[in-house]
Amino acid sequence: MDNCTVIKIGGNILDDPAALDQFLRQFASLPGKKVLIHGGGKLATRLAGQLGIEQQLVDGRRITDTETLRIVTMVYAGLINKQVVATLQSLGCNAVGLSGADGNLVQAHKREKAGLDYGWVGDVDAVNAEWLGYLLEAGMTVVIAPITHDKKGQLLNTNADTIAQETAKALAGRLTVQLLYSFEKSGVLLDTNDESTLVPTLRREQFSQLKAEGKIFAGMIPKLENAFAALDSGVEKVIIGKADNLAALVEGRSGTHIIHD
Amino acid sequence: MDNCTVIKIGGNILDDPAALDQFLRQFASLPGKKVLIHGGGKLATRLAGQLGIEQQLVDGRRITDTETLRIVTMVYAGLINKQVVATLQSLGCNAVGLSGADGNLVQAHKREKAGLDYGWVGDVDAVNAEWLGYLLEAGMTVVIAPITHDKKGQLLNTNADTIAQETAKALAGRLTVQLLYSFEKSGVLLDTNDESTLVPTLRREQFSQLKAEGKIFAGMIPKLENAFAALDSGVEKVIIGKADNLAALVEGRSGTHIIHD
Repeated sequence: MDNCTVIKIGGNILDDPAALDQFLRQFASLPGKKVLIHGGGKLATRLAGQLGIEQQLVDGRRITDTETLRIVTMVYAGLINKQVVATLQSLGCNAVGLSGADGNLVQAHKREKAGLDYGWVGDVDAVNAEWLGYLLEAGMTVVIAPITHDKKGQLLNTNADTIAQETAKALAGRLTVQLLYSFEKSGVLLDTNDESTLVPTLRREQFSQLKAEGKIFAGMIPKLENAFAALDSGVEKVIIGKADNLAALVEGRSGTHIIHD
Repeated sequence: MDNCTVIKIGGNILDDPAALDQFLRQFASLPGKKVLIHGGGKLATRLAGQLGIEQQLVDGRRITDTETLRIVTMVYAGLINKQVVATLQSLGCNAVGLSGADGNLVQAHKREKAGLDYGWVGDVDAVNAEWLGYLLEAGMTVVIAPITHDKKGQLLNTNADTIAQETAKALAGRLTVQLLYSFEKSGVLLDTNDESTLVPTLRREQFSQLKAEGKIFAGMIPKLENAFAALDSGVEKVIIGKADNLAALVEGRSGTHIIHD
């Protein structure tokens, strides 16, 4: 099977033009099939502020009301997605930017939780691996914005980490997939304040042991549970780390490589 | 060769949700391969106003400065394009929405005219027929936003009529193409104030004759010259008319059909 690298980049890179440019140069030169999933960064919040749209929070989570959905659709699927695609094109990387609605790439449903309405937030039902595979087979690099749809005409704001994970899982049947999460830390650290305590590779057995010994930071546990779930679904490798040196991350010279046993 | 219908819809439909919905229902049910090119409508102007960005006009033409380019990229390639795609998906039409940067679909260059700077406005160099054909072959309906790029990383605001015409021409080698322009009038009228004077079909010889007799409204002449240029490039038929009854327009029961001799 061909290799495919699925990379999630977060807001910290998108908000920093120099870092984004450096990342895209490195991304463009990576060999093999590639999928990039981007988040939103601070642009959407800034635009909402300029338009006087108040951000509603419920239990610390942002509510995607109708006005906010319009803004994130404009910023994520319009401005950020097309700027990333145009930059990749200029670097000789034949990229196509899509939302989840395009070719029914990511179908989702509105999140419903007892007593809580998150607004137009989508939980992923399925990633269309056949369509994605058709594009990758044509030599396209696919850039996905975190906007999905419910196939009933409704766009939905959706977590980019989840889209990355579901995309990697969906492709795992047809390609040898590695999933990279760009992250503010260098990877899994035994001491969150000391980057020298990086765990370079992590297998399930080690993870269970470190967890039992209380050596893994609580906030990291769900991320790692998700990483192992992705491995269970056929993803070959999950890498968590800083994306400032992408080649080093992919080649195992930085970050934490979470490996299937 | 398979048939392909290329349709340009203008701002008058995009600004009217009920008209847009009616149009998309009719569009979704058209048989064969389909490409839809949409303009922008008043949304971009409204958003610019809300953000306090002044529209600069030179010789009556709007200048696309950096802030305006960001806005049209958000509104055209983000909001309008994704809402149209999500609606088509809900109607069982497998649509994918693209800008000119996506897969290098429409490459353009910044317009330069002696002494005049239109800002980030692009004139089309080429439509990537191979890429478009690959998508249509997969059963996709392609929805194009009027944002192009120069392959050097710069996005450009580009006339949707021109993109429609260049798209129709580029596809003409591989498909039997008909090009439809949605328009505020019912078609070519001998008296612009009297819709009963509609010319239902127009061949080149008739056009020359009507032009010589001064019977065609001056503003319509460049549109028709362009239509005949498209026919010269292998487009089978150009239709100009109101898109409120799309089936009637396609079947020749309304509008003006401009036909290759």
